[in-house]
Amino acid sequence: MTETLVASQSRESIIGFDRPFCVIGERINPTGRKKLAKEMESGDFSTVERDAVAQVEAGAMILDVNAGVTAVDPNETEPPLLRKTLQIVQSVTDIPICIDSSVPAALAAGLEVAKGRPLVNSVTGEEDRLETILPLVAKYDVPVVAISNDETGISEDPDVRFEVAKKIVERAADHGIKSHDIVVDPLVMPIGAMGTAGRQVFQLCRRLKDELKVNTTCGASNVSFGMPNRRALTGYFLAMAASNGMTSAIMNPLHDEDMHAILAANVLNGTDVSCRVWTRKFREVPADGAALSDADQRRLAREQRRRRRA
Amino acid sequence: MTETLVASQSRESIIGFDRPFCVIGERINPTGRKKLAKEMESGDFSTVERDAVAQVEAGAMILDVNAGVTAVDPNETEPPLLRKTLQIVQSVTDIPICIDSSVPAALAAGLEVAKGRPLVNSVTGEEDRLETILPLVAKYDVPVVAISNDETGISEDPDVRFEVAKKIVERAADHGIKSHDIVVDPLVMPIGAMGTAGRQVFQLCRRLKDELKVNTTCGASNVSFGMPNRRALTGYFLAMAASNGMTSAIMNPLHDEDMHAILAANVLNGTDVSCRVWTRKFREVPADGAALSDADQRRLAREQRRRRRA
Repeated sequence: MTETLVASQSRESIIGFDRPFCVIGERINPTGRKKLAKEMESGDFSTVERDAVAQVEAGAMILDVNAGVTAVDPNETEPPLLRKTLQIVQSVTDIPICIDSSVPAALAAGLEVAKGRPLVNSVTGEEDRLETILPLVAKYDVPVVAISNDETGISEDPDVRFEVAKKIVERAADHGIKSHDIVVDPLVMPIGAMGTAGRQVFQLCRRLKDELKVNTTCGASNVSFGMPNRRALTGYFLAMAASNGMTSAIMNPLHDEDMHAILAANVLNGTDVSCRVWTRKFREVPADGAALSDADQRRLAREQRRRRRA
Repeated sequence: MTETLVASQSRESIIGFDRPFCVIGERINPTGRKKLAKEMESGDFSTVERDAVAQVEAGAMILDVNAGVTAVDPNETEPPLLRKTLQIVQSVTDIPICIDSSVPAALAAGLEVAKGRPLVNSVTGEEDRLETILPLVAKYDVPVVAISNDETGISEDPDVRFEVAKKIVERAADHGIKSHDIVVDPLVMPIGAMGTAGRQVFQLCRRLKDELKVNTTCGASNVSFGMPNRRALTGYFLAMAASNGMTSAIMNPLHDEDMHAILAANVLNGTDVSCRVWTRKFREVPADGAALSDADQRRLAREQRRRRRA
């Protein structure tokens, strides 16, 4: 019963085989969000603050925080900016944090200011990464996301990706890091480019759970890159991955499609005890009725309040 | 690569591990549909005809046909009524049929008029059923749904249900029936009553595929019995079951939630080659847009046609 403890100063989120699926909010990330990047560079963190609060309200259990605003000289710019962004996020919410950077110096800077027990995102199987990130993770005694690629890139062969994950777990052990503190990202390819992408991930999640006994995560929306009706596809992917042992994902809690899939997966995996969360959220929806959007549910709730008053 | 061939006079539907999920339309069934039962008893098959056509249009690949209108003397009433209903259904559509009855004499009557290679629904592990249904299945050389309960009822222990399925496969072999002609129903309990119901089915589907190498089916909507937002939950269940090896379900193709889940599962399981079906169906939905209902899509298509004309 593997459990990964991620904590802020005052709250804990546990990623685990028998736990509700852990929703890691992806929004605080300027990659592909030019406007946000510009704001953050100019010292405007109003969007960051709003995104933090909105994601927590929507059900995020951990917030991913990335400050990669530029590809130019990130070793200089990213450490102070990530530090600042983390401080802002921690000032508006008390849920646990995932420090997200490909720049080791930025991860180090982030760890200096992050309170509690943040999740570090990420280490890969590349030699220089292993030798830089793992000592940092060991020093702060924090959990880490392990991405299953190495110097040779991302293998299309899931067995190779499994072996990379295994290597990272073994190398982490050399640094005194326990396997329950490794959350493996098996890497999700776009299904539009690679028809086996889904099956590969499902199979990898099962092996990672059964053989390595580690928790798993992924950047969920990548699977639907370039596809029409993308959000729906991402939602079904999340439910399917969760039923094959995936225990967390970096995803968008503001998308109903993502969150409803997770709520349903928790019910069907038996981790929503007595179906309480599902029933509370959807009690206004007729048993045999079609799913209502959250906006429709709010409208329905308003209408019912109005009637009760009348 | 197990494949179950189900056929009408002119068309084939194949249930298989590497095939798109097989949608068996559930609507032609008077159980719980009092109005339909009354109509059928009085010789009015207009609803049956409409349901047949609508389900095929919505994507059903096989039509389940049940004529169990009454619990009083079904041995007398059901055989002629099932025969008549099958004839009606076969007159309005040419897709393969699933003959559904718990009355052996009705299955026998149905087999006399069903064209092609219908699926027989069902045999159980009960001794008298095995001895009555299997010879019939062998005589007509047709595939059969095997429900994993026996004289002791439905076990809550999935291992017991697996053993019942195994027994049916073995007994069928004694009658010369190949395992690829057995489609096992592992039995889906309501998740509201039994929190492990989902996990049990997922695990059973994997074992039935890996160990017995048989196709699987279920009455999908049973899982969400009594739950709010029931249709959404059934949809996610279907996707999750499909990603654990379930290859068909008796379901409602008129529910968008059911069908979108199946289309997504086919994409993510790699059985929707080049994502063609998904892309054709949803090409009007913006890549990052929310899912549109089928009604909204039709509206959108109309609007686009109107603009092209203008």
